[in-house]
Amino acid sequence: MNLLLIEATELGSDATVSLKGRRSDHIIHILGGKPGDRIRVGVINGPVGTGEILTVREEGRNTEVELYFTPTDNSLLQPSVDLILGLVRPIMLKRLLTQVVSLGVGRIFLIRSNRVEKSFFEASLLKDANYRQYLLQGLEQSKDTYLPQVTIHERFKPFIEDVVPGLASRYRRKFLAHPTADLDLKQIAGGSRIGGRTLLAVGPEGGWVDHEVEKFLEQSFVPVSMGRRVLRTDTAVVALLAQLMLLQEK
Amino acid sequence: MNLLLIEATELGSDATVSLKGRRSDHIIHILGGKPGDRIRVGVINGPVGTGEILTVREEGRNTEVELYFTPTDNSLLQPSVDLILGLVRPIMLKRLLTQVVSLGVGRIFLIRSNRVEKSFFEASLLKDANYRQYLLQGLEQSKDTYLPQVTIHERFKPFIEDVVPGLASRYRRKFLAHPTADLDLKQIAGGSRIGGRTLLAVGPEGGWVDHEVEKFLEQSFVPVSMGRRVLRTDTAVVALLAQLMLLQEK
Repeated sequence: MNLLLIEATELGSDATVSLKGRRSDHIIHILGGKPGDRIRVGVINGPVGTGEILTVREEGRNTEVELYFTPTDNSLLQPSVDLILGLVRPIMLKRLLTQVVSLGVGRIFLIRSNRVEKSFFEASLLKDANYRQYLLQGLEQSKDTYLPQVTIHERFKPFIEDVVPGLASRYRRKFLAHPTADLDLKQIAGGSRIGGRTLLAVGPEGGWVDHEVEKFLEQSFVPVSMGRRVLRTDTAVVALLAQLMLLQEK
Repeated sequence: MNLLLIEATELGSDATVSLKGRRSDHIIHILGGKPGDRIRVGVINGPVGTGEILTVREEGRNTEVELYFTPTDNSLLQPSVDLILGLVRPIMLKRLLTQVVSLGVGRIFLIRSNRVEKSFFEASLLKDANYRQYLLQGLEQSKDTYLPQVTIHERFKPFIEDVVPGLASRYRRKFLAHPTADLDLKQIAGGSRIGGRTLLAVGPEGGWVDHEVEKFLEQSFVPVSMGRRVLRTDTAVVALLAQLMLLQEK
């Protein structure tokens, strides 16, 4: 945990916050925090700042820590890449959500496609936003506070025919990860920076079927290669986001 | 499994190979292979080619498949990036080895550093090359046959003072992943391609300590940034290898 995250609603009007459970355990048992110590705190979808430890309590297994929060950086930036992901197995999705958030994405669209098992949508991970803890772990890791919006799309056709066209004007670039594409991101960029908001679509394990690729191309997605290697979804997502990050930098 | 791997020693002088267990199960139950069908086969550290199914046998749970192998591509290429990795937890290492191999690395040095738990070296994964199966999964995924050499270095000082200088002449570039570095790989490359053999060092969970960073710098490693985000080891390794791949392409 490189950043301790709190909800805006947890922060009292006197700028204090009282923590119990995982976060106070972490402060006491991992960081060895004592009154007067300062730790890095971020408000979800809000500022990053300093938390001064006011009080520390331990009663048996129960811990409680009170912090005084001083914001130091209000420049919350929405990451410039959004991700469409063919839904993967829950165990892979947990890990991937944390990794993707640590790299920085603004929105995550989890979609059904031909090679996605329907049962994946029944996973408890997708109920009641249970996936949220994995998003938060990504923010804690990368010291960011921008919590991506996650939406779940159980049917491919309405997603690609209705949702995507409605979003199209928000993006300057739309890329489709596709093993048989001719050009990689650097070749597509052609020596320039990839600027503006970008939407990246990565298929599920087993990839997209031809019909789905056609539908993405109709929506002006540009196919992107990762070289001659065929990568598993979890590797491809991290690899392409990392390459995009690099090409977006000035 | 995008490529079925066999050992050179399994291949008879008549170019046939007899498979049992996981591989014949896969051919019969996943691919539905029948005599006359052709599948993609690779010889570890050897050619890629076609395996024509000669016979298929099922007796209870036991399966056996005989293939006739015809090589089609002898251009085995050693990947141009080698990796030094601060040893991570066994569960993360398994996954990471598969991912790293699917992206293509020539050698993997698993090393001790200050923030590596000594107990990680006792893991059964590191005994008797038990990690080999995870390397093979990476090759099966990416359709490659180059099996990286893995070496294990339980002490940092002899590794950085003796092993690294002995290897130095093999590498044109040496990079050290470091969160506080100023420049990312694109800025370091400065618009040029990153050519030649490259050695990339990524720290364990918790990162390198200052003393270790100094030692790498003494050995002419160039610190590399991943932007302002702090990434977990598993994310950083995949991200940096993907960025290197991109900058190595013409």
